Amino acid sequence: MKTQAHIVCIGGGTGTFVALRGLKKYTENVSAIVAMSDSGGSNKRIRDEFGLLPTSDIRQCLVALSDENGGAGLLRKLFMYRFEKGEGISGMTFGNLFMAALADILGSQKEAIRQTGKVLRIHGSVIPVSFTKTNLFARYEDGHVLSEEHLIDEPPHDGTLRITDISLKPKARVNPEAVTAIMEADAVLLGPGDLYTSVIPNLLVTGIARALIKTHAKVIYTVNLMTKYGQTYRFTARDHVRALEQFIGRSLDYCLMNTEPLSEEALAIYGKLHEEPVADDLGKKEYYTIVRAKLVSRRIVHKTKSDVLVRSLIRHDSGKLAAAVMGILAK
Amino acid sequence: MKTQAHIVCIGGGTGTFVALRGLKKYTENVSAIVAMSDSGGSNKRIRDEFGLLPTSDIRQCLVALSDENGGAGLLRKLFMYRFEKGEGISGMTFGNLFMAALADILGSQKEAIRQTGKVLRIHGSVIPVSFTKTNLFARYEDGHVLSEEHLIDEPPHDGTLRITDISLKPKARVNPEAVTAIMEADAVLLGPGDLYTSVIPNLLVTGIARALIKTHAKVIYTVNLMTKYGQTYRFTARDHVRALEQFIGRSLDYCLMNTEPLSEEALAIYGKLHEEPVADDLGKKEYYTIVRAKLVSRRIVHKTKSDVLVRSLIRHDSGKLAAAVMGILAK
Repeated sequence: MKTQAHIVCIGGGTGTFVALRGLKKYTENVSAIVAMSDSGGSNKRIRDEFGLLPTSDIRQCLVALSDENGGAGLLRKLFMYRFEKGEGISGMTFGNLFMAALADILGSQKEAIRQTGKVLRIHGSVIPVSFTKTNLFARYEDGHVLSEEHLIDEPPHDGTLRITDISLKPKARVNPEAVTAIMEADAVLLGPGDLYTSVIPNLLVTGIARALIKTHAKVIYTVNLMTKYGQTYRFTARDHVRALEQFIGRSLDYCLMNTEPLSEEALAIYGKLHEEPVADDLGKKEYYTIVRAKLVSRRIVHKTKSDVLVRSLIRHDSGKLAAAVMGILAK
Repeated sequence: MKTQAHIVCIGGGTGTFVALRGLKKYTENVSAIVAMSDSGGSNKRIRDEFGLLPTSDIRQCLVALSDENGGAGLLRKLFMYRFEKGEGISGMTFGNLFMAALADILGSQKEAIRQTGKVLRIHGSVIPVSFTKTNLFARYEDGHVLSEEHLIDEPPHDGTLRITDISLKPKARVNPEAVTAIMEADAVLLGPGDLYTSVIPNLLVTGIARALIKTHAKVIYTVNLMTKYGQTYRFTARDHVRALEQFIGRSLDYCLMNTEPLSEEALAIYGKLHEEPVADDLGKKEYYTIVRAKLVSRRIVHKTKSDVLVRSLIRHDSGKLAAAVMGILAK
């Protein structure tokens, strides 16, 4: 039996994908609010050559919420497919090309996203946080600035540098559907996901923070499992929360923290990249409630050949994460 | 009320598209047998870069037989879409990329075609005449030879030269489903379509001519409306039939000939390309039955911007053509 609880996930990347896949089993009423400032890989081409807003995160969320048993199974597989052949096509994801073609046919990217949701028979909704063409800018502790999300994601500089300021230029106008979803939610889930390039870019859109302050929803933050070199180098759980709270303009209600040990094999790979498990330096009780639980997926994810972006090997488990969120909702 | 008549169309190009769209309204039992030697445009890339068999004709037939009212409407539009943007993507058809991705996912192009038919909810079936990777070779009256379908389609030489021999190299193995379809058919419709590059390439596949000799189906040929410079320059109706009968190894049962005048506007464009209406030099009765009828579409088709191939402006009308075929079946 599914509940009627309305749960909103804010993010966009792999972490949101994992959360949505788990939550859709508990409720029909899941929404994903997705950052629209991504500029890497397939998205870069969608932006530069097609003049469209980036769709990779949208695509991932649509796939996460798509019907896995019914007739949409094949389309679901296609949406996750990345071309490995074809000059100028290799590296592109099928789903992004699908949505680019549809945006051209329908004359609206917003409508293209809606129709793609129908084709994939999604349970819930995927809401771009904004339709403004905008770029992410990060300032680092040594004063230099990087623009474009994909550069900030994997900066060319010393990855130990901390981000001191992050912003969107031009300012992004909020999609009113995102505000409505937050206002009507029973729970808002921030993360898991890259702090400065998936979660926070949503909070930078004018109106999102205000909605988070006003909503009666429980605001839950899922702390990342691993630090990210170039973005959250040696960040503890407390560092994550502190960085996040700068932008949400209110305190969290709940913080979800993993307690399960991580795979030694995967940790060795991360170690070479100067990445480590996020240390739990939170107290037994903070001004928010800390929920500690086993949240890790046993499956280690490996990269595909043509996948130009590095994907996380260690991930949250869809089922465990969703169960923890539902547990909080039941409190 | 639809009949149970099994009608098989042999061809692959625009002419087959038109025939299928009309016939599916009369019977659920339509099959298209499609030439697999196309090598132009989007197909060239599918062959060269993806190492797959050409799918443009397959795609057109799938779209022709797809459900036009139901939920597959949007996918149908997508399948007809040609990208106009994106380096290396512009000029590619969405449908070809869809089938290329699916062939990779499923590990079989045959299965990819079958599954695409399901997704598009087609009425009837689309049958590749062969799964052999093969090329078309044409010899001309001055002795020189051209290989590759797209060159033969629009030869770089004097377009008045006649083709004296045409063949597939290597020899193509017939798809047994094509033989079965012909054997079980009530009517087999040859053309309309480019004589040497759409219709005859099917007949060159070993086993097709034999099936046409053995079948109890009525064998109907629809004479083209226009001659084609470089292929059937100044061909009369009789020239078309003669060229065709070289390859089917039997005489026709029926010949469908248009009597409706053609648009002056369109004829002026064709005239510049040294193309003219096919002259009706058939007698009142030949060794086959001649059915003369109004068969022309009132709609003039214009090219799209990114369409690198020349499309026919004057076309048969789906409804009129299908009605004429059903009339023959009822005899």
